[in-house]
Amino acid sequence: MTLMELSMYPVDKGESLSAYVARLIDVIDQSGLAYRLGPMGTVIEGEWSDLMALLTRCYETLEPVSNRIIANVKLDARKDSRNRLEGKVRSVQEKMAGSRTE
Amino acid sequence: MTLMELSMYPVDKGESLSAYVARLIDVIDQSGLAYRLGPMGTVIEGEWSDLMALLTRCYETLEPVSNRIIANVKLDARKDSRNRLEGKVRSVQEKMAGSRTE
Amino acid sequence: MTLMELSMYPVDKGESLSAYVARLIDVIDQSGLAYRLGPMGTVIEGEWSDLMALLTRCYETLEPVSNRIIANVKLDARKDSRNRLEGKVRSVQEKMAGSRTE
Amino acid sequence: MTLMELSMYPVDKGESLSAYVARLIDVIDQSGLAYRLGPMGTVIEGEWSDLMALLTRCYETLEPVSNRIIANVKLDARKDSRNRLEGKVRSVQEKMAGSRTE
Repeated sequence: MTLMELSMYPVDKGESLSAYVARLIDVIDQSGLAYRLGPMGTVIEGEWSDLMALLTRCYETLEPVSNRIIANVKLDARKDSRNRLEGKVRSVQEKMAGSRTE
Repeated sequence: MTLMELSMYPVDKGESLSAYVARLIDVIDQSGLAYRLGPMGTVIEGEWSDLMALLTRCYETLEPVSNRIIANVKLDARKDSRNRLEGKVRSVQEKMAGSRTE
Repeated sequence: MTLMELSMYPVDKGESLSAYVARLIDVIDQSGLAYRLGPMGTVIEGEWSDLMALLTRCYETLEPVSNRIIANVKLDARKDSRNRLEGKVRSVQEKMAGSRTE
Repeated sequence: MTLMELSMYPVDKGESLSAYVARLIDVIDQSGLAYRLGPMGTVIEGEWSDLMALLTRCYETLEPVSNRIIANVKLDARKDSRNRLEGKVRSVQEKMAGSRTE
Protein backbone atom coordinates (compact mmCIF):
# COMPACT_ATOMS: atom_id res chain seq x y z
CA MET A 1 0.00 0.00 0.00
CA THR A 2 1.03 3.58 -0.54
CA LEU A 3 0.74 6.61 1.72
CA MET A 4 0.33 9.99 0.02
CA GLU A 5 0.66 13.23 1.94
CA LEU A 6 -1.03 16.02 0.05
CA SER A 7 -0.80 19.75 0.59
CA MET A 8 -2.46 21.75 -2.23
CA TYR A 9 -3.55 25.38 -2.25
CA PRO A 10 -4.04 28.45 -4.46
CA VAL A 11 -1.45 31.23 -4.16
CA ASP A 12 -3.70 33.96 -5.56
CA LYS A 13 -6.31 34.02 -2.78
CA GLY A 14 -4.54 35.68 0.15
CA GLU A 15 -3.22 34.24 3.37
CA SER A 16 -6.32 32.36 4.57
CA LEU A 17 -6.43 29.00 2.85
CA SER A 18 -8.69 26.85 5.03
CA ALA A 19 -11.81 27.26 2.87
CA TYR A 20 -9.91 25.84 -0.13
CA VAL A 21 -8.37 23.06 1.91
CA ALA A 22 -11.84 22.15 3.21
CA ARG A 23 -13.11 21.66 -0.35
CA LEU A 24 -10.27 19.23 -1.00
CA ILE A 25 -10.92 17.31 2.20
CA ASP A 26 -14.52 16.89 1.07
CA VAL A 27 -13.21 15.40 -2.18
CA ILE A 28 -10.82 13.12 -0.26
CA ASP A 29 -13.60 12.10 2.11
CA GLN A 30 -15.86 11.14 -0.78
CA SER A 31 -13.16 8.89 -2.25
CA GLY A 32 -13.78 6.33 0.47
CA LEU A 33 -10.03 5.94 1.08
CA ALA A 34 -8.69 6.05 4.63
CA TYR A 35 -7.13 9.41 5.46
CA ARG A 36 -5.84 11.47 8.34
CA LEU A 37 -6.03 15.23 8.51
CA GLY A 38 -2.92 17.00 9.82
CA PRO A 39 -1.82 20.60 10.35
CA MET A 40 0.54 20.58 7.34
CA GLY A 41 -1.15 18.12 4.99
CA THR A 42 -3.55 15.23 4.68
CA VAL A 43 -2.25 11.66 4.50
CA ILE A 44 -4.25 9.17 2.44
CA GLU A 45 -3.67 5.41 2.19
CA GLY A 46 -4.48 3.44 -0.94
CA GLU A 47 -3.31 1.75 -4.09
CA TRP A 48 -1.09 3.91 -6.31
CA SER A 49 -3.71 4.26 -9.08
CA ASP A 50 -6.46 5.30 -6.64
CA LEU A 51 -4.17 7.92 -5.11
CA MET A 52 -3.25 9.34 -8.52
CA ALA A 53 -6.93 9.56 -9.49
CA LEU A 54 -7.66 11.39 -6.23
CA LEU A 55 -4.76 13.79 -6.77
CA THR A 56 -6.22 14.74 -10.15
CA ARG A 57 -9.71 15.20 -8.68
CA CYS A 58 -8.21 17.59 -6.10
CA TYR A 59 -6.51 19.55 -8.86
CA GLU A 60 -9.75 19.69 -10.87
CA THR A 61 -11.55 21.06 -7.80
CA LEU A 62 -9.26 24.08 -7.46
CA GLU A 63 -8.44 24.60 -11.13
CA PRO A 64 -11.68 26.48 -12.02
CA VAL A 65 -11.25 28.97 -9.15
CA SER A 66 -7.53 29.77 -9.15
CA ASN A 67 -4.91 31.04 -11.58
CA ARG A 68 -2.04 29.38 -9.78
CA ILE A 69 -2.14 26.21 -7.70
CA ILE A 70 0.82 24.78 -5.80
CA ALA A 71 0.93 21.24 -4.47
CA ASN A 72 3.40 19.28 -2.41
CA VAL A 73 3.01 15.53 -2.54
CA LYS A 74 5.01 12.97 -0.59
CA LEU A 75 4.60 9.32 -1.53
CA ASP A 76 5.77 6.29 0.44
CA ALA A 77 5.08 2.96 -1.31
CA ARG A 78 5.98 -0.13 0.65
CA LYS A 79 5.28 -3.72 -0.33
CA ASP A 80 3.51 -6.18 1.96
CA SER A 81 2.25 -3.41 4.21
CA ARG A 82 -1.27 -2.51 5.30
CA ASN A 83 -2.93 -0.05 7.65
CA ARG A 84 0.15 2.16 7.66
CA LEU A 85 -1.85 5.28 8.51
CA GLU A 86 -1.95 4.04 12.12
CA GLY A 87 0.87 1.53 11.94
CA LYS A 88 3.74 3.89 11.14
CA VAL A 89 3.03 6.13 14.12
CA ARG A 90 2.58 3.13 16.46
CA SER A 91 5.83 1.56 15.28
CA VAL A 92 7.74 4.77 16.10
CA GLN A 93 6.05 5.20 19.49
CA GLU A 94 6.98 1.66 20.53
CA LYS A 95 10.64 2.42 19.84
CA MET A 96 10.80 5.71 21.73
CA ALA A 97 12.93 5.88 24.88
CA GLY A 98 9.97 7.01 26.95
CA SER A 99 7.95 3.94 26.05
CA ARG A 100 10.72 1.57 27.16
CA THR A 101 10.98 2.86 30.70
CA GLU A 102 7.34 2.44 31.65
CA MET B 1 4.22 31.25 15.39
CA THR B 2 5.66 28.83 12.90
CA LEU B 3 4.75 25.25 12.12
CA MET B 4 7.54 22.98 10.92
CA GLU B 5 6.85 19.56 9.46
CA LEU B 6 9.95 17.42 9.63
CA SER B 7 10.69 14.14 7.94
CA MET B 8 14.33 13.07 8.32
CA TYR B 9 15.89 9.63 7.79
CA PRO B 10 19.07 7.82 6.75
CA VAL B 11 19.10 6.24 3.27
CA ASP B 12 21.89 3.76 4.04
CA LYS B 13 20.06 1.66 6.64
CA GLY B 14 17.55 -0.37 4.63
CA GLU B 15 13.82 -0.06 4.34
CA SER B 16 12.87 -0.03 8.03
CA LEU B 17 13.28 3.48 9.38
CA SER B 18 11.14 3.58 12.53
CA ALA B 19 14.06 3.08 14.98
CA TYR B 20 15.78 6.17 13.55
CA VAL B 21 12.59 8.20 13.53
CA ALA B 22 11.98 7.21 17.18
CA ARG B 23 15.35 8.70 18.19
CA LEU B 24 14.37 11.97 16.56
CA ILE B 25 10.99 12.03 18.27
CA ASP B 26 12.80 11.62 21.59
CA VAL B 27 14.86 14.70 20.71
CA ILE B 28 11.75 16.62 19.68
CA ASP B 29 9.95 15.53 22.84
CA GLN B 30 12.81 16.78 25.02
CA SER B 31 12.68 20.22 23.36
CA GLY B 32 9.49 21.02 25.24
CA LEU B 33 7.85 22.36 22.07
CA ALA B 34 4.34 21.25 21.16
CA TYR B 35 4.34 18.61 18.43
CA ARG B 36 2.12 16.13 16.67
CA LEU B 37 3.33 12.83 15.31
CA GLY B 38 1.95 11.85 11.90
CA PRO B 39 2.42 8.99 9.44
CA MET B 40 4.54 11.08 7.03
CA GLY B 41 6.25 13.55 9.35
CA THR B 42 6.15 15.28 12.70
CA VAL B 43 4.74 18.80 12.99
CA ILE B 44 6.25 21.07 15.64
CA GLU B 45 5.05 24.54 16.65
CA GLY B 46 7.39 27.23 17.91
CA GLU B 47 9.36 30.36 17.25
CA TRP B 48 11.55 30.26 14.14
CA SER B 49 14.82 30.20 16.10
CA ASP B 50 13.68 27.36 18.38
CA LEU B 51 12.61 25.31 15.37
CA MET B 52 15.95 25.85 13.61
CA ALA B 53 17.85 24.80 16.76
CA LEU B 54 15.72 21.66 16.96
CA LEU B 55 16.29 20.85 13.28
CA THR B 56 20.04 20.98 13.89
CA ARG B 57 19.76 18.77 16.99
CA CYS B 58 17.87 16.19 14.91
CA TYR B 59 20.61 16.27 12.26
CA GLU B 60 23.31 15.89 14.94
CA THR B 61 21.46 12.85 16.29
CA LEU B 62 21.61 10.95 12.99
CA GLU B 63 24.91 12.31 11.68
CA PRO B 64 27.17 10.00 13.76
CA VAL B 65 25.33 6.86 12.61
CA SER B 66 24.65 7.47 8.90
CA ASN B 67 26.62 8.32 5.78
CA ARG B 68 23.68 9.94 4.05
CA ILE B 69 20.74 11.70 5.65
CA ILE B 70 17.77 13.12 3.76
CA ALA B 71 15.34 15.59 5.27
CA ASN B 72 12.17 17.23 4.04
CA VAL B 73 11.09 20.30 5.94
CA LYS B 74 7.93 22.33 5.39
CA LEU B 75 7.64 25.65 7.19
CA ASP B 76 4.52 27.79 7.59
CA ALA B 77 5.14 31.07 9.43
CA ARG B 78 2.07 33.17 10.11
CA LYS B 79 1.90 36.35 12.15
CA ASP B 80 -0.56 36.84 14.99
CA SER B 81 -1.33 33.16 15.21
CA ARG B 82 -1.10 30.72 18.10
CA ASN B 83 -1.93 27.11 18.81
CA ARG B 84 -1.99 26.29 15.11
CA LEU B 85 -1.18 22.65 15.68
CA GLU B 86 -4.83 22.14 16.64
CA GLY B 87 -6.24 25.31 15.13
CA LYS B 88 -5.44 24.64 11.47
CA VAL B 89 -7.18 21.27 11.47
CA ARG B 90 -10.20 22.65 13.35
CA SER B 91 -10.50 25.58 10.95
CA VAL B 92 -10.63 23.20 7.99
CA GLN B 93 -13.10 20.84 9.64
CA GLU B 94 -15.50 23.69 10.40
CA LYS B 95 -15.56 24.60 6.71
CA MET B 96 -16.17 21.09 5.36
CA ALA B 97 -19.50 20.36 3.71
CA GLY B 98 -20.17 17.49 6.11
CA SER B 99 -19.84 19.72 9.15
CA ARG B 100 -22.39 22.20 7.82
CA THR B 101 -25.20 19.70 7.36
CA GLU B 102 -25.17 18.27 10.86
CA MET C 1 1.06 24.61 -18.14
CA THR C 2 2.26 22.79 -15.07
CA LEU C 3 5.76 22.30 -13.72
CA MET C 4 6.41 19.10 -11.76
CA GLU C 5 9.56 18.59 -9.75
CA LEU C 6 10.14 14.92 -9.13
CA SER C 7 12.53 13.25 -6.72
CA MET C 8 11.93 9.48 -6.45
CA TYR C 9 14.22 6.79 -5.07
CA PRO C 10 14.32 3.42 -3.30
CA VAL C 11 15.29 3.44 0.41
CA ASP C 12 16.37 -0.22 0.51
CA LYS C 13 19.38 0.04 -1.83
CA GLY C 14 22.02 1.83 0.21
CA GLU C 15 23.34 5.35 -0.05
CA SER C 16 24.20 5.47 -3.77
CA LEU C 17 21.05 6.29 -5.71
CA SER C 18 22.28 7.61 -9.06
CA ALA C 19 21.76 4.34 -10.98
CA TYR C 20 18.07 4.36 -10.01
CA VAL C 21 17.67 8.03 -10.76
CA ALA C 22 19.26 7.45 -14.20
CA ARG C 23 16.59 4.86 -15.06
CA LEU C 24 13.90 7.40 -14.23
CA ILE C 25 15.55 10.11 -16.32
CA ASP C 26 15.54 7.67 -19.24
CA VAL C 27 11.78 7.27 -18.74
CA ILE C 28 11.31 11.04 -18.50
CA ASP C 29 13.45 11.56 -21.59
CA GLN C 30 11.34 9.10 -23.59
CA SER C 31 8.16 10.97 -22.66
CA GLY C 32 9.07 13.76 -25.07
CA LEU C 33 8.20 16.39 -22.45
CA ALA C 34 10.62 19.25 -21.78
CA TYR C 35 12.63 18.69 -18.60
CA ARG C 36 15.60 19.99 -16.68
CA LEU C 37 17.85 17.84 -14.54
CA GLY C 38 18.89 19.31 -11.20
CA PRO C 39 20.92 18.21 -8.19
CA MET C 40 17.84 17.65 -6.00
CA GLY C 41 15.17 16.71 -8.53
CA THR C 42 14.09 16.84 -12.14
CA VAL C 43 11.62 19.48 -13.30
CA ILE C 44 9.27 18.55 -16.14
CA GLU C 45 6.83 20.85 -17.96
CA GLY C 46 3.55 19.63 -19.40
CA GLU C 47 -0.19 19.28 -19.14
CA TRP C 48 -1.42 17.92 -15.81
CA SER C 49 -2.58 14.59 -17.30
CA ASP C 50 0.72 13.99 -19.11
CA LEU C 51 2.65 14.68 -15.90
CA MET C 52 0.49 12.28 -13.88
CA ALA C 53 0.97 9.55 -16.50
CA LEU C 54 4.73 10.11 -16.35
CA LEU C 55 4.74 9.98 -12.55
CA THR C 56 3.06 6.58 -12.69
CA ARG C 57 5.53 5.32 -15.32
CA CYS C 58 8.40 6.34 -13.01
CA TYR C 59 6.79 4.45 -10.12
CA GLU C 60 6.28 1.38 -12.32
CA THR C 61 9.97 1.50 -13.26
CA LEU C 62 11.20 1.23 -9.67
CA GLU C 63 8.35 -0.89 -8.25
CA PRO C 64 9.70 -4.25 -9.54
CA VAL C 65 13.15 -3.69 -8.03
CA SER C 66 12.44 -2.11 -4.64
CA ASN C 67 10.44 -2.89 -1.50
CA ARG C 68 10.08 0.72 -0.52
CA ILE C 69 9.99 3.75 -2.78
CA ILE C 70 9.79 7.34 -1.59
CA ALA C 71 8.86 10.24 -3.84
CA ASN C 72 8.65 13.97 -3.37
CA VAL C 73 6.62 15.83 -5.96
CA LYS C 74 6.13 19.58 -6.20
CA LEU C 75 3.53 20.85 -8.65
CA ASP C 76 3.05 24.44 -9.83
CA ALA C 77 0.08 24.89 -12.19
CA ARG C 78 -0.36 28.36 -13.63
CA LYS C 79 -2.86 29.41 -16.26
CA ASP C 80 -1.87 31.25 -19.42
CA SER C 81 1.77 30.37 -18.99
CA ARG C 82 4.19 28.59 -21.31
CA ASN C 83 7.86 27.71 -21.40
CA ARG C 84 8.15 28.15 -17.64
CA LEU C 85 11.13 25.80 -17.39
CA GLU C 86 13.30 28.66 -18.66
CA GLY C 87 10.92 31.52 -17.99
CA LYS C 88 10.71 31.25 -14.20
CA VAL C 89 14.48 31.42 -13.75
CA ARG C 90 14.79 34.31 -16.22
CA SER C 91 12.02 36.26 -14.51
CA VAL C 92 13.83 35.97 -11.17
CA GLN C 93 17.22 36.87 -12.62
CA GLU C 94 15.82 40.04 -14.22
CA LYS C 95 14.57 41.20 -10.80
CA MET C 96 17.81 40.57 -8.89
CA ALA C 97 19.70 43.58 -7.52
CA GLY C 98 22.83 42.56 -9.44
CA SER C 99 21.05 42.69 -12.76
CA ARG C 100 19.82 46.24 -12.17
CA THR C 101 23.24 47.78 -11.74
CA GLU C 102 24.71 46.63 -15.04
CA MET D 1 28.82 18.52 2.45
CA THR D 2 25.10 19.17 2.39
CA LEU D 3 22.82 20.23 -0.43
CA MET D 4 19.79 22.33 0.50
CA GLU D 5 16.99 22.99 -1.95
CA LEU D 6 15.01 26.01 -0.88
CA SER D 7 11.67 27.24 -2.10
CA MET D 8 10.26 30.09 0.04
CA TYR D 9 7.51 32.57 -0.78
CA PRO D 10 4.72 34.69 0.72
CA VAL D 11 1.15 33.47 0.18
CA ASP D 12 -0.47 36.87 0.74
CA LYS D 13 0.98 38.67 -2.30
CA GLY D 14 -0.94 37.22 -5.24
CA GLU D 15 0.17 34.82 -7.94
CA SER D 16 3.36 36.57 -9.12
CA LEU D 17 6.19 35.62 -6.80
CA SER D 18 9.35 36.32 -8.79
CA ALA D 19 10.10 39.71 -7.14
CA TYR D 20 10.15 38.01 -3.71
CA VAL D 21 12.21 35.09 -4.95
CA ALA D 22 14.70 37.57 -6.48
CA ARG D 23 15.27 39.19 -3.06
CA LEU D 24 16.08 35.78 -1.62
CA ILE D 25 18.48 34.95 -4.43
CA ASP D 26 20.30 38.21 -3.68
CA VAL D 27 20.65 37.04 -0.07
CA ILE D 28 21.85 33.61 -1.20
CA ASP D 29 24.28 35.20 -3.65
CA GLN D 30 25.78 37.38 -0.92
CA SER D 31 26.39 34.32 1.28
CA GLY D 32 29.29 33.29 -0.95
CA LEU D 33 28.05 29.69 -1.01
CA ALA D 34 27.82 27.84 -4.31
CA TYR D 35 24.24 27.68 -5.60
CA ARG D 36 22.21 26.79 -8.63
CA LEU D 37 18.95 28.49 -9.56
CA GLY D 38 16.19 26.21 -10.80
CA PRO D 39 12.57 26.58 -11.90
CA MET D 40 11.17 25.07 -8.67
CA GLY D 41 13.81 26.02 -6.11
CA THR D 42 17.40 27.03 -5.53
CA VAL D 43 19.98 24.44 -4.51
CA ILE D 44 22.82 25.60 -2.27
CA GLU D 45 25.88 23.59 -1.20
CA GLY D 46 27.61 24.09 2.14
CA GLU D 47 28.20 22.98 5.68
CA TRP D 48 25.04 22.33 7.70
CA SER D 49 25.52 25.34 9.99
CA ASP D 50 26.11 27.74 7.06
CA LEU D 51 22.97 26.48 5.35
CA MET D 52 20.86 26.92 8.49
CA ALA D 53 22.17 30.48 8.95
CA LEU D 54 21.27 31.23 5.33
CA LEU D 55 17.78 29.75 5.74
CA THR D 56 17.16 32.10 8.66
CA ARG D 57 18.48 35.11 6.69
CA CYS D 58 16.02 34.26 3.91
CA TYR D 59 13.17 34.09 6.42
CA GLU D 60 14.22 37.42 7.95
CA THR D 61 14.17 38.97 4.48
CA LEU D 62 10.52 38.12 3.84
CA GLU D 63 9.24 38.33 7.42
CA PRO D 64 8.90 42.16 7.49
CA VAL D 65 6.85 42.24 4.28
CA SER D 66 4.50 39.27 4.57
CA ASN D 67 1.93 37.93 7.03
CA ARG D 68 2.36 34.35 5.93
CA ILE D 69 5.47 32.71 4.52
CA ILE D 70 5.69 29.12 3.32
CA ALA D 71 8.95 27.31 2.74
CA ASN D 72 9.86 23.90 1.42
CA VAL D 73 13.35 22.73 2.23
CA LYS D 74 15.00 19.50 1.08
CA LEU D 75 18.30 18.56 2.67
CA ASP D 76 20.73 15.88 1.50
CA ALA D 77 23.77 15.47 3.77
CA ARG D 78 26.39 12.99 2.58
CA LYS D 79 29.77 12.35 4.15
CA ASP D 80 33.01 12.47 2.19
CA SER D 81 31.40 14.29 -0.70
CA ARG D 82 32.26 17.58 -2.36
CA ASN D 83 31.10 19.61 -5.32
CA ARG D 84 27.79 17.77 -5.41
CA LEU D 85 25.99 20.66 -7.09
CA GLU D 86 27.58 19.53 -10.37
CA GLY D 87 28.55 16.03 -9.33
CA LYS D 88 25.11 14.60 -8.67
CA VAL D 89 23.79 15.58 -12.11
CA ARG D 90 26.94 14.28 -13.84
CA SER D 91 26.76 10.98 -11.99
CA VAL D 92 23.19 10.44 -13.18
CA GLN D 93 23.96 11.46 -16.76
CA GLU D 94 26.84 8.97 -16.98
CA LYS D 95 24.47 6.16 -16.01
CA MET D 96 21.69 7.00 -18.48
CA ALA D 97 21.01 4.56 -21.31
CA GLY D 98 21.64 7.26 -23.90
CA SER D 99 25.15 7.90 -22.62
CA ARG D 100 26.12 4.25 -22.89
CA THR D 101 25.47 3.94 -26.59
CA GLU D 102 27.82 6.70 -27.68
